[in-house]
Amino acid sequence: MAKSRLVTLLTDFGTRDPYVAAMKGAILRVCPAAQIVDISHDVPAQDVLAGAFVLAQATPFFPPETLHVVVVDPGVGTSRSILAARLDGQLFLFPDNGIITFVAQALPMEAIVAVRNIKALRPGPESMTFHGRDIFAPVAGRILNGMSIADLGPQPGTYKLLDLPAPVEQVDWIIGQVIYVDHFGNLISNIPQELIVGRREDMQQAVVMCSGRDVGTLRQTYDDVAEGEAAALFNSMKLLEIAVNCGRACDVFGADVGTEICLEKR
Amino acid sequence: MAKSRLVTLLTDFGTRDPYVAAMKGAILRVCPAAQIVDISHDVPAQDVLAGAFVLAQATPFFPPETLHVVVVDPGVGTSRSILAARLDGQLFLFPDNGIITFVAQALPMEAIVAVRNIKALRPGPESMTFHGRDIFAPVAGRILNGMSIADLGPQPGTYKLLDLPAPVEQVDWIIGQVIYVDHFGNLISNIPQELIVGRREDMQQAVVMCSGRDVGTLRQTYDDVAEGEAAALFNSMKLLEIAVNCGRACDVFGADVGTEICLEKR
Amino acid sequence: MAKSRLVTLLTDFGTRDPYVAAMKGAILRVCPAAQIVDISHDVPAQDVLAGAFVLAQATPFFPPETLHVVVVDPGVGTSRSILAARLDGQLFLFPDNGIITFVAQALPMEAIVAVRNIKALRPGPESMTFHGRDIFAPVAGRILNGMSIADLGPQPGTYKLLDLPAPVEQVDWIIGQVIYVDHFGNLISNIPQELIVGRREDMQQAVVMCSGRDVGTLRQTYDDVAEGEAAALFNSMKLLEIAVNCGRACDVFGADVGTEICLEKR
Repeated sequence: MAKSRLVTLLTDFGTRDPYVAAMKGAILRVCPAAQIVDISHDVPAQDVLAGAFVLAQATPFFPPETLHVVVVDPGVGTSRSILAARLDGQLFLFPDNGIITFVAQALPMEAIVAVRNIKALRPGPESMTFHGRDIFAPVAGRILNGMSIADLGPQPGTYKLLDLPAPVEQVDWIIGQVIYVDHFGNLISNIPQELIVGRREDMQQAVVMCSGRDVGTLRQTYDDVAEGEAAALFNSMKLLEIAVNCGRACDVFGADVGTEICLEKR
Repeated sequence: MAKSRLVTLLTDFGTRDPYVAAMKGAILRVCPAAQIVDISHDVPAQDVLAGAFVLAQATPFFPPETLHVVVVDPGVGTSRSILAARLDGQLFLFPDNGIITFVAQALPMEAIVAVRNIKALRPGPESMTFHGRDIFAPVAGRILNGMSIADLGPQPGTYKLLDLPAPVEQVDWIIGQVIYVDHFGNLISNIPQELIVGRREDMQQAVVMCSGRDVGTLRQTYDDVAEGEAAALFNSMKLLEIAVNCGRACDVFGADVGTEICLEKR
Repeated sequence: MAKSRLVTLLTDFGTRDPYVAAMKGAILRVCPAAQIVDISHDVPAQDVLAGAFVLAQATPFFPPETLHVVVVDPGVGTSRSILAARLDGQLFLFPDNGIITFVAQALPMEAIVAVRNIKALRPGPESMTFHGRDIFAPVAGRILNGMSIADLGPQPGTYKLLDLPAPVEQVDWIIGQVIYVDHFGNLISNIPQELIVGRREDMQQAVVMCSGRDVGTLRQTYDDVAEGEAAALFNSMKLLEIAVNCGRACDVFGADVGTEICLEKR
């Protein structure tokens, strides 16, 4: 097989409605051999930040040449571009709204184009409100059939990245924010392991604070604390996370996206 | 490959329980090469109208010869028939409870049979309560393996269609109803674009009313109004829809299935 | 094809987060031909009993040699073992926390091993908190590629089974418990059909009690009672179930896992 036929979908379409299946049908019409894997369709409606996070955490584990199609697209029907890109050997098709932000922070950008000549790529009328089915899906099918993204359009002048707060570092503390709350209620922050390990070893014994409450020093696993107790650890994404063993940290701490997480030397 | 091995599933089984997987396993036992795509398993329990709507909006986008298996089946274990049909080159296997209504309104019926001789089609005992696993799945496997639906049983004398209200049209107004509320909270009505475009062009400037409130004239995209404002437009299904830009129209209007939607000439 | 490439996934990861997709990506990296089917990712967080039930009810319907990967794993990162087993021709990869209980009660255990030499099986670092992606997935990929489970490690000294209440039987009554509540609200008990049919035929006319309320005698289908009425029947899993026709038995009876279900001779 010359090319991968593996394609993932990440949307905020939910799973009750016909939208996801219509997209899958439209991909399979163009490329019947497509191997479709869902990343998620439960991104909160129009939540580009959450979509960007899920995309970056799921896609690096797929085989090279996998195509990742992202339709979290509050600007559907407006003049926002549709982009196709290759980063670290993986392909992405997505609206130009910043959803590529975390992927672009983590992986080298090898190519990026703005999808043009959509009429040539998919004959027939398109709706103003469902580009997932009418543009993303047939273009994805063309890519799966072997079309190079270089043939989709020209390099864009620029592309949008989300303007996100970075962790702030001082001699005695590091302050970051919760950027994602997962379905277990775990609080995932923007403080990466690399900020500390091998660099600020003096912070290894720092106390972690969340919503003004002491979470203790860094742990290795959720199970290093008793059931119902909170633990701060670098998680499988190498980000500082606050979890409650067999509980929901977001409820225990009254925390959400934006809540401050602090490492303090004592 | 002589025949498609592509099969979709639409049920109200939810995704927490073993039911969907048991059905998939039972299909794969008969046809290991089956390519299974979920339409949805989150149809509200026993809601034949919602299932009928989702079925009709998802299936036309699949490749020809795709088999669509529908198990929204409040009458399981009763004498209701199981039907197999071909409409516009797509195959359907479904309980005779009206769930084919919107598909049958939209696509030409090419063949329909009542599934008989179930004992011959799938040896072994069957439960009275889980025909999805014990009848629909093995019969689907047989169809995917190449069995013609003509061999499943005789043409039925009749089959059930839902008795749905049609939009009512006068010189100065058209009144329809909300027939589906999607997970974004958008209100989808039974007023088709074809009732107006190219036919009642005088209504193009009509004001749309929902729950007695003015939604303004017809728009092209959700983004034609400010965030939080409502827009009425013909959606990707070519049905009149009320949406709120980055909001939930069902909550804003206190509307649900059955709520009146009206176009009024001013 | 020498071996099946069919693999199912059962987790409590939910569907909002990147976790399930990361696992699927990691499987496909090792075995690009893997055919992945979801059992469910909506097992309540860390609920080993519910996961054990869903596993046992879904897996017997899959083709022989299917690999079932289970990650409901509150002990991730601790010293709990990861086990691989063959039961009745089906393969299972799971944490040693009792999640195999109902499968092991129903199917003959043909082989079981503790997965060792994980470094040899999957080169590279592993997280302490996401063994689903970092151990289960690559080991699953190796099994799908043809590795025998006998090569994964030695037979364990023992393995964990859940300590579950069994139904209690007397001359005039049988008492069991609700062990699972499905998404329809049906109450599924631990009273198997085989306890009665062909053995205690005197109980066929017994009255079923739930939460102290009379549910009447055993029925054949949900439809044997009027809409809104409760029915007790042996379900498709051959377990005594209380259902409400077009309603939710768990709400009607205020019942949950642990509620007593009783058959009484009158």
